[in-house]
Amino acid sequence: MSLLQKIEKLNTLKSSLHGKDFLLTWEKTDDDLKFILQVATILKEMRQENISARVFDSGLAISNFRDKSTRTRFSFASAANLLGLAVQELDEEKSQISHGETVRETANMISFLSDFIGIRDDMFLGEGNKYMRQVGEALDEGFAKGVLPVRPGIVNLQCDMDHPTQSMADLLHLINEYGSLEALRGKKMVMSWAYSPSYGKPLSVPQGIIALMTRFGMNVELAYPEGYDLIPEIVDIARSNARMSGGSFKVSHSMAEAMRDADIVYPKSWAPYHIMEQRTQLLMNGDKNGLKELEQVCLANNAKHKDWEYNEGIRQLTKNSDALYMHCLPADISGESCKQGEVSKETFERYRIKTYQEAGFKPYIIAAMMFTNRFQNPVEELRILLNKKTPRVL
Amino acid sequence: MSLLQKIEKLNTLKSSLHGKDFLLTWEKTDDDLKFILQVATILKEMRQENISARVFDSGLAISNFRDKSTRTRFSFASAANLLGLAVQELDEEKSQISHGETVRETANMISFLSDFIGIRDDMFLGEGNKYMRQVGEALDEGFAKGVLPVRPGIVNLQCDMDHPTQSMADLLHLINEYGSLEALRGKKMVMSWAYSPSYGKPLSVPQGIIALMTRFGMNVELAYPEGYDLIPEIVDIARSNARMSGGSFKVSHSMAEAMRDADIVYPKSWAPYHIMEQRTQLLMNGDKNGLKELEQVCLANNAKHKDWEYNEGIRQLTKNSDALYMHCLPADISGESCKQGEVSKETFERYRIKTYQEAGFKPYIIAAMMFTNRFQNPVEELRILLNKKTPRVL
Amino acid sequence: MSLLQKIEKLNTLKSSLHGKDFLLTWEKTDDDLKFILQVATILKEMRQENISARVFDSGLAISNFRDKSTRTRFSFASAANLLGLAVQELDEEKSQISHGETVRETANMISFLSDFIGIRDDMFLGEGNKYMRQVGEALDEGFAKGVLPVRPGIVNLQCDMDHPTQSMADLLHLINEYGSLEALRGKKMVMSWAYSPSYGKPLSVPQGIIALMTRFGMNVELAYPEGYDLIPEIVDIARSNARMSGGSFKVSHSMAEAMRDADIVYPKSWAPYHIMEQRTQLLMNGDKNGLKELEQVCLANNAKHKDWEYNEGIRQLTKNSDALYMHCLPADISGESCKQGEVSKETFERYRIKTYQEAGFKPYIIAAMMFTNRFQNPVEELRILLNKKTPRVL
Repeated sequence: MSLLQKIEKLNTLKSSLHGKDFLLTWEKTDDDLKFILQVATILKEMRQENISARVFDSGLAISNFRDKSTRTRFSFASAANLLGLAVQELDEEKSQISHGETVRETANMISFLSDFIGIRDDMFLGEGNKYMRQVGEALDEGFAKGVLPVRPGIVNLQCDMDHPTQSMADLLHLINEYGSLEALRGKKMVMSWAYSPSYGKPLSVPQGIIALMTRFGMNVELAYPEGYDLIPEIVDIARSNARMSGGSFKVSHSMAEAMRDADIVYPKSWAPYHIMEQRTQLLMNGDKNGLKELEQVCLANNAKHKDWEYNEGIRQLTKNSDALYMHCLPADISGESCKQGEVSKETFERYRIKTYQEAGFKPYIIAAMMFTNRFQNPVEELRILLNKKTPRVL
Repeated sequence: MSLLQKIEKLNTLKSSLHGKDFLLTWEKTDDDLKFILQVATILKEMRQENISARVFDSGLAISNFRDKSTRTRFSFASAANLLGLAVQELDEEKSQISHGETVRETANMISFLSDFIGIRDDMFLGEGNKYMRQVGEALDEGFAKGVLPVRPGIVNLQCDMDHPTQSMADLLHLINEYGSLEALRGKKMVMSWAYSPSYGKPLSVPQGIIALMTRFGMNVELAYPEGYDLIPEIVDIARSNARMSGGSFKVSHSMAEAMRDADIVYPKSWAPYHIMEQRTQLLMNGDKNGLKELEQVCLANNAKHKDWEYNEGIRQLTKNSDALYMHCLPADISGESCKQGEVSKETFERYRIKTYQEAGFKPYIIAAMMFTNRFQNPVEELRILLNKKTPRVL
Repeated sequence: MSLLQKIEKLNTLKSSLHGKDFLLTWEKTDDDLKFILQVATILKEMRQENISARVFDSGLAISNFRDKSTRTRFSFASAANLLGLAVQELDEEKSQISHGETVRETANMISFLSDFIGIRDDMFLGEGNKYMRQVGEALDEGFAKGVLPVRPGIVNLQCDMDHPTQSMADLLHLINEYGSLEALRGKKMVMSWAYSPSYGKPLSVPQGIIALMTRFGMNVELAYPEGYDLIPEIVDIARSNARMSGGSFKVSHSMAEAMRDADIVYPKSWAPYHIMEQRTQLLMNGDKNGLKELEQVCLANNAKHKDWEYNEGIRQLTKNSDALYMHCLPADISGESCKQGEVSKETFERYRIKTYQEAGFKPYIIAAMMFTNRFQNPVEELRILLNKKTPRVL
């Protein structure tokens, strides 16, 4: 299909992304998601063909990372740059936020000439997504009252509930692996807990995966040791999605059993939901001793499940002994980044390059989220870019 | 008035801003200031009409923040980006400045391809503005001796004496509120000290305000508790400005009395001048105990003036009980950002959005300072931009 | 010679820089180096004539500074900006690299939309250059396997072995001082150790200088107190280069004797090679006490050679008492940045502006390294830029 055909194909979708923040995949319609996936595909191909996707002559994209990040930081910077925006980081340590500014005020102060704000806030259960909505409300008010010339769009770069730029990039990777979204129907995907020597890993990836992958007819299985539950409301969303999409959703408690005949596997560690709740309380109270104790308890608990490692033995149980291995990276690789972890070195190495390709979709997913948020008629904008054919590199 | 008319109106002003740093408003003529205010207005309107103001195809704007900053940092980044420049931060901790480089050398080393340097240096009384001039002299030498292809312009982003991007943004806000600069004539503006639970707040805002607002026929009153003096030379400048502009300038020592019939009020905390002098000495000597003692004395002193809070009671005394409230933000809001502070929550809330609008002029003021510094014929440059009408967003 | 003539002159050189990292000058042919020097000259002149050299409409240049930097950091940012790229810093503290990522993985994760990676890694002897090659291999793999749309070029911004952007800028400075590369033939250049009150200064500058300056027929003398050896393999390279270029190379052990009749002098401190080896071991073991002890021993050793200061007395011994003084800056200047150091205040002041000019070539050298790496036919690209004559500043 030519680039132009891919652009025109967007017209078959009824999406309403214009002017709306991207905070949770389950707030978007199927057509919304398909639209973003397709725009991401187009932007990626345009760049490969050296066609500039620069729609902004100037403008800022603000990033606000409240937790460490490499790949999402670079993905956001890449997406902003692809569209012509300069990145300005809101580094809360260098700002007067420590002087007691309100979210409401800061949101406006950084936005006078901004087009987007990307936020990562994944440490505090019940807080991250709420914070993004507070920023959004402040921007709504600022725009309504003439403070801001445009309402900057917000992109969720990982919160306590969802990690939509990750899950959407993962889905685009699957589409590329299997040829189409339709081809995923009936495939068995296992989102499995895996052992890690660290604790407190966010829930947003497994939650984001089960909530998104159940929407397109896949048979999704969530496997974890008893007690390692995700937020129940999000598990309900996955269950309901599966019902509506004609797929299935199942929770089970043995990695090996779950992996049997899987087409796609996503073994990754996380901390139990109720632990993250306790941790949030302790963090908010600044209770360092409490945090240390909790860590000890958790690590001891984790250590009971060292057999939840994805390795050659378990791989043999999957479809054709070759399920597509996925990970948001970095993985805890036994004998490489830790003594024992989520995946054996040998097994990871088989799919290492695939995981890099998986990660490579994220910049385009973010750019597509920005693009579709900003333009009332993104199809027309893409046509213009294609006609202009400004070379990215001379 | 059309954009073109606004541009042509600049021709009625005799300004000489080209190639000159913007360090203190009182070094500039009235026409210089009017010119910048008008260019800022034009740039803001151009952006609202989606006309790109990009005059640089490439180039760097260096920022050098020697104190925390959110809004000025983002304003500087926004201004640079609006004109097409990339921001490069001089982070003194990451640089070899700690290895003993001289200001003279560093100034040249960062400037080979730079067009502007924005500097905030407001902690040390008697030092901040001096530092900017040292940088300026170093750049003069570098340019004269062929080290630098252009002499980068310096923008004072707050020093020990003045905060010109703030006061000019504040003035542009007043012009927008009252319709014109002429409409400000005869208005009563009160720059008042206000209580804050912190100490050591810079003097640059009140000093900048009284020195600028006295130039256009306003009746400016400076109110503070006995002992909370500003730098005497700058108070003299305000007094002399008022005399020349046909306005008035008065110092008084009761917030309530001063606020009576005020059109505009600016209640804000600062540390007394002589305290800042002591503090500078202690900081330069690295005397941590001395600093702690001074802080205790000051906080105790401040605490005697908790009644210097701008609130509903005092607001009632102002013109029509509705004086325009101004603040450089963030304000110390009683019951919100602190137990008791500069302004009551209820009163701040009445004017909150207005303070955001006030802040929104700063990026354009900075851009206008850059624009008028850089071009010999800024009117012609603006005409070209208007004719080209390159869309900022496709 | 006109700009166009300078461009066409490139056709007389047989270079093969396309797609190759710039890691060590001694891996490049003479024509490669001449090509870069000439492109740097052209880019500098284009900027002076307000001709934009923007060849990228968008794209990222990643910087990875594993040690402090001002001038190289700004040079890299300037070079990237000159060509149209946005700089994104890989700050290892803000990233998940601390979570145990492999170089292989990180290299790919930051490169999905990147065109260049600039790396400084000069603290660990035997490690810095190796690290750059590991990054390079990871990028090769990522590109070969379809992870990366282009193979980002690597620019060595200082390693344990070489500092090619410095030495090439130094050479371009000499060409400008003497009129041509040919004019350097037969000139005596002394790379001399000098006393510094600090210890552990990298070897990359003296090594880079002797390895590069011996290639064009100069008589290079390396002078240092007994025991302050450089890496022997690199000294051998210098010796062999001198033989092949028709110049000479000599090692001696008295600053004053070496400086006699010198045309060019480069007095600069460094730590002995074997000390840097010990230090690397201690750093890698995190042995803080060991590091303190080593520092004491070294400082005591250094202190025996306080007479290795370049000053008026020694200057008198040089050709016409006026050898061109060079330094990579910042210099340890006696009575200015330290009590006693590498150079006397009076002598440094004589050549201070020259050292600034010397530093001013670095951004263009880096830009030329990027330019020649990226384009198969850089001559044609330069012609296009010259024809378009897009103004850098409107």
